[in-house]
Amino acid sequence: METPWDHRYAQRTQRMGSSAIRELLKLTENKEIISFAGGMPAPEGFPLEAVKKACIRVLDEYGAQALQYGTTEGYLPLREQICRHTNRYGMDITPENVMITSGSQQALDLLGKIFINPGDRILVESPTYLGALQAWNAYGAEYISVPSDKEGMITDALEQALRYGPKFIYVLPNFQNPTGVTLSLERRYRLVELADQYGVPIIEDDPYGQLRFEGDHLPSIVVIDGQYRGNHGNCYRGNVIYLSTFSKILSPGIRLAWVVAPPEVIRKLVQAKQGADLHTATFNQIVAHEVSRDGFLDQHIKFLRKMYRERRDAMLAAMDRYFPPEVDWTQPEGGLFLWGTLPEYLDSNEVLKDAVARKVAFVPGDAFYPNGGGHNTMRINFSYATPEKIQEGIVRLGEVLHASIKSIAVA
Amino acid sequence: METPWDHRYAQRTQRMGSSAIRELLKLTENKEIISFAGGMPAPEGFPLEAVKKACIRVLDEYGAQALQYGTTEGYLPLREQICRHTNRYGMDITPENVMITSGSQQALDLLGKIFINPGDRILVESPTYLGALQAWNAYGAEYISVPSDKEGMITDALEQALRYGPKFIYVLPNFQNPTGVTLSLERRYRLVELADQYGVPIIEDDPYGQLRFEGDHLPSIVVIDGQYRGNHGNCYRGNVIYLSTFSKILSPGIRLAWVVAPPEVIRKLVQAKQGADLHTATFNQIVAHEVSRDGFLDQHIKFLRKMYRERRDAMLAAMDRYFPPEVDWTQPEGGLFLWGTLPEYLDSNEVLKDAVARKVAFVPGDAFYPNGGGHNTMRINFSYATPEKIQEGIVRLGEVLHASIKSIAVA
Repeated sequence: METPWDHRYAQRTQRMGSSAIRELLKLTENKEIISFAGGMPAPEGFPLEAVKKACIRVLDEYGAQALQYGTTEGYLPLREQICRHTNRYGMDITPENVMITSGSQQALDLLGKIFINPGDRILVESPTYLGALQAWNAYGAEYISVPSDKEGMITDALEQALRYGPKFIYVLPNFQNPTGVTLSLERRYRLVELADQYGVPIIEDDPYGQLRFEGDHLPSIVVIDGQYRGNHGNCYRGNVIYLSTFSKILSPGIRLAWVVAPPEVIRKLVQAKQGADLHTATFNQIVAHEVSRDGFLDQHIKFLRKMYRERRDAMLAAMDRYFPPEVDWTQPEGGLFLWGTLPEYLDSNEVLKDAVARKVAFVPGDAFYPNGGGHNTMRINFSYATPEKIQEGIVRLGEVLHASIKSIAVA
Repeated sequence: METPWDHRYAQRTQRMGSSAIRELLKLTENKEIISFAGGMPAPEGFPLEAVKKACIRVLDEYGAQALQYGTTEGYLPLREQICRHTNRYGMDITPENVMITSGSQQALDLLGKIFINPGDRILVESPTYLGALQAWNAYGAEYISVPSDKEGMITDALEQALRYGPKFIYVLPNFQNPTGVTLSLERRYRLVELADQYGVPIIEDDPYGQLRFEGDHLPSIVVIDGQYRGNHGNCYRGNVIYLSTFSKILSPGIRLAWVVAPPEVIRKLVQAKQGADLHTATFNQIVAHEVSRDGFLDQHIKFLRKMYRERRDAMLAAMDRYFPPEVDWTQPEGGLFLWGTLPEYLDSNEVLKDAVARKVAFVPGDAFYPNGGGHNTMRINFSYATPEKIQEGIVRLGEVLHASIKSIAVA
């Protein structure tokens, strides 16, 4: 039955495809499949008891306030807590620099809304986070891709790309999604310097920074930018907008993240958020604030680091043992993902079909390249499955890869 | 300190003002002011114990699922519950027709995103809901205003307006925000008929439909449209998109609402929501589903109707007694608001200044007119303050109005 809606979609919907990742999440609903496709935290890593206690305390002590409308900027004590936490890592920010969002995806959407005119070019690492592309496609963004290697975005290629006039640079410096790679300290300094020289600002997306399993913490781009500019009081007014989230350290199902930006940008974001969802759930903000008090979250993060480190180690050991020598992969120092590279003559979308038949799944890498490429790459998640399942899944995937390589060799 | 962000805002931000309502909410933070300005539910009306029990049950029984990522469409049992509830009122919908949103504001934003090209004209009642204007301004909407009276949108004026080629019609048929007026049954039929004749679809926004204090429930536009088209199975595929919310019947601080639409529109909305916030908080959806089970929410709504009826009655009685005879106001049969009209020679923005000095507040009505007008009107909320506070606030506002009228008469 035809309705008048059918012919009334806005032009921007033509670039709004369904997310490959979200569609693939549907695969994980089949319990027989060992899925390395999603980006889900370990269900064993949710602090259920702490959240339950916090819910009870919040409803008993805050009462109606917890269920009432709140301010668009977010719950002030939570914003203050985020400042205290973040400033331990060398930032110098006040609550004026912070807005709470309904997950980091909303921060990406609102940043697109306030900054991107149709046809604007965004400079991204290649490959880069699919959710950002999906948010910004709706605002008509085009992309300038800068290649990356095992030290992250190749800053030698950045300078040339900056001459194409990007609106901003988008970078995930820690255990990047999809590659798991970390931007080296030297390149962090070079990025800040070049961005300043060309007058191009930076969005730093850091969902996994707290989940480092080994090696030294590297300063955030926003911290380096602050040092570069010198101290101008406690309120940050530099070139970098910084995003982080509770999704990977507490729970993604409560949809809580935050943006750090100069106060002028925060004010624009607040206006955009008023129109987008008025504010993020009050109850969730107060509960997260309660859970994070008294060092609980710091302790919990230590527990998560240990759990994810074991899972990464299980995966790397199994890959060493069961993957064909023609396949290469990254060695992430943290986060949730690693990145596999197959021989040029294989297409990871084809490999996925065989993998699903063998009851194991990953995400083909080409979706993460905004301007094409990556046909022989794959994103592999190590946070969701248990070490036993990881071992079994990698055995299966190894068989599929051996067979794929062999069939080409025979042909 | 200048940053490169300063000169990089998208063109659409020029139409993104800060919401007058959100700014006025800040007034209510001053405890001395009796505010009729916001649109907040009564804090005494939140079922704190039921929510607490539901939180405990959900974390005990659902465990990790409650804190994990969820599907963009929303939690299926909640969508099924919404269908069962809604179909009692003559709708004929299935979960395919339903998407959960992070408050109704998000539904308005996503509808703007998928339907509005810059310059598209939206047909609205005049005055209309400010949040819709705010959401759609960001997508470059223009507005065609159709005047309303005490039976809602004047459908005799609608036909002429439809010839200007609106993208869609936006209407709040029950206890409208801001006027409190209800669209009469005759006009509902006429609206559906004219929309069909001109091939223009309708967005029906119904946040308050459950909060009727007196008179008979009138069928929703979406129900009348379904009857008009005849039954084509249980899946609705008609001209109307219907919005409703848990904000006024359970809690606005949990940010939960829903859209009913043809499945093809739901699929586009899901794509848009993937880019906007991935999904609405899983925990909140499961908790709302638990709270709504076993008839609890139906009982709670009866309690809210009684509470709000008392508050409305207290306000109307006080206005009868303390307002000057030159002032007129609506008599809402439900909802949260009524609408005052001052003599033409008064400007309600000026009156507000005197009112705030006298420690009482309302929203000047002109903000609700997208194409100008309403300088002498005011939106008055009766849901938030207790009957005692309402009486006291109306006494103060009556004094301010008497003084304003007198000062003009003297001049």
